[in-house]
Amino acid sequence: MIHTYSLIHDDLPAMDDDDLRRGRPTVHRKFDEATAILAADALQPLAFHVIASAPALDDAEKSAIARMVAAACGSLGMTGGQSIDLASEGLTLTADQLSEMHFLKTGALIRAAVMSATCLTSDLPPQKLAALDRFSRDIGLAFQIRDDILDVAGETEIIGKRAGADKELSKATWPAIFGLEESHRRCEELLRSGMAQLSVFAAHAESLRLLATYIVERES
Amino acid sequence: MIHTYSLIHDDLPAMDDDDLRRGRPTVHRKFDEATAILAADALQPLAFHVIASAPALDDAEKSAIARMVAAACGSLGMTGGQSIDLASEGLTLTADQLSEMHFLKTGALIRAAVMSATCLTSDLPPQKLAALDRFSRDIGLAFQIRDDILDVAGETEIIGKRAGADKELSKATWPAIFGLEESHRRCEELLRSGMAQLSVFAAHAESLRLLATYIVERES
Repeated sequence: MIHTYSLIHDDLPAMDDDDLRRGRPTVHRKFDEATAILAADALQPLAFHVIASAPALDDAEKSAIARMVAAACGSLGMTGGQSIDLASEGLTLTADQLSEMHFLKTGALIRAAVMSATCLTSDLPPQKLAALDRFSRDIGLAFQIRDDILDVAGETEIIGKRAGADKELSKATWPAIFGLEESHRRCEELLRSGMAQLSVFAAHAESLRLLATYIVERES
Repeated sequence: MIHTYSLIHDDLPAMDDDDLRRGRPTVHRKFDEATAILAADALQPLAFHVIASAPALDDAEKSAIARMVAAACGSLGMTGGQSIDLASEGLTLTADQLSEMHFLKTGALIRAAVMSATCLTSDLPPQKLAALDRFSRDIGLAFQIRDDILDVAGETEIIGKRAGADKELSKATWPAIFGLEESHRRCEELLRSGMAQLSVFAAHAESLRLLATYIVERES
């Protein structure tokens, strides 16, 4: 199993929580920090190159999707959320503050992925646009909560005890603030709420349903 | 003068070369490393948002410019050059290898800035396209050499001796490998060569001439 990498390579120095991502070494751990930063710096423009080169899109669609994805990545999206996350260490956030931070950190990009499809049509009624928007926000938050649950669970599985638990308490995660049980419950609730939004699309939203279910049930 | 910041704030711990950029504290020094990384992560999508939102561009132009800039930023451009730069520490590069690395690290983005203007017209003869391409490569390399000269000069001015010189020797820069005098000579040569390319545009390339002169003559 790939998440035992750290156990069978015992020539590596001891790792702390930040070196593992659900039991697998992070890029900055497996290579080095400069490589991790440069990989991110290369992947960002690659995303925009893919969008701007997509043969299936016309130029107006490319521009609209690039704007949407760029806004979701930047200081008012993912990067802003990550920044708030770092600034929140040691603070106790309310559920609303935590949801807002999580929406920016991961939800905004998931929302952009869902909503970018709406750039391909001009005749989507406002009701359906709003349903997709709410669906994507629900599963975006569910994704982040599930991620935090898996972080706690992954550390437990590998280290054999709740090694990460104390450290998690100083970080703004759903399990740290509300506990694992409440986190599972909230995840399920968000899945139900997201699924309900899709009813307006009937059978046409089957792939979104599969995606939402995967997000909440995934084990890694 | 802003580059004396480090001297008048003597409550800051001692800084090494990487904390200064021509005498001014770097972002990771003035704030912290996480903030520096996140600022870069926010600025990249902002660039693509600006391109995809530019009112003066039509959608085809936006797509073409986004592709050009994305390619120049990514693993085959700036990020790739930075990666080669890091991998080259302690090695002695030839002039050709150094030029190639510098072309990727800074030249590619300067070239994209110049060549993106060619996306706005479809009737530029191949001779003019080639002239702009060569011009942008020349001033891109001149920019990097000038940058490295200023790094050495900046350290000398502030610290009062060639404090950075030893460290520079292990880094792949033009002054470190060929010396300051040869670096100045090469810079002037590239400026002349770049200017010669612009003759085909007569008076229409005046802003490019000013830009090229600024790059080679700037003091910071």
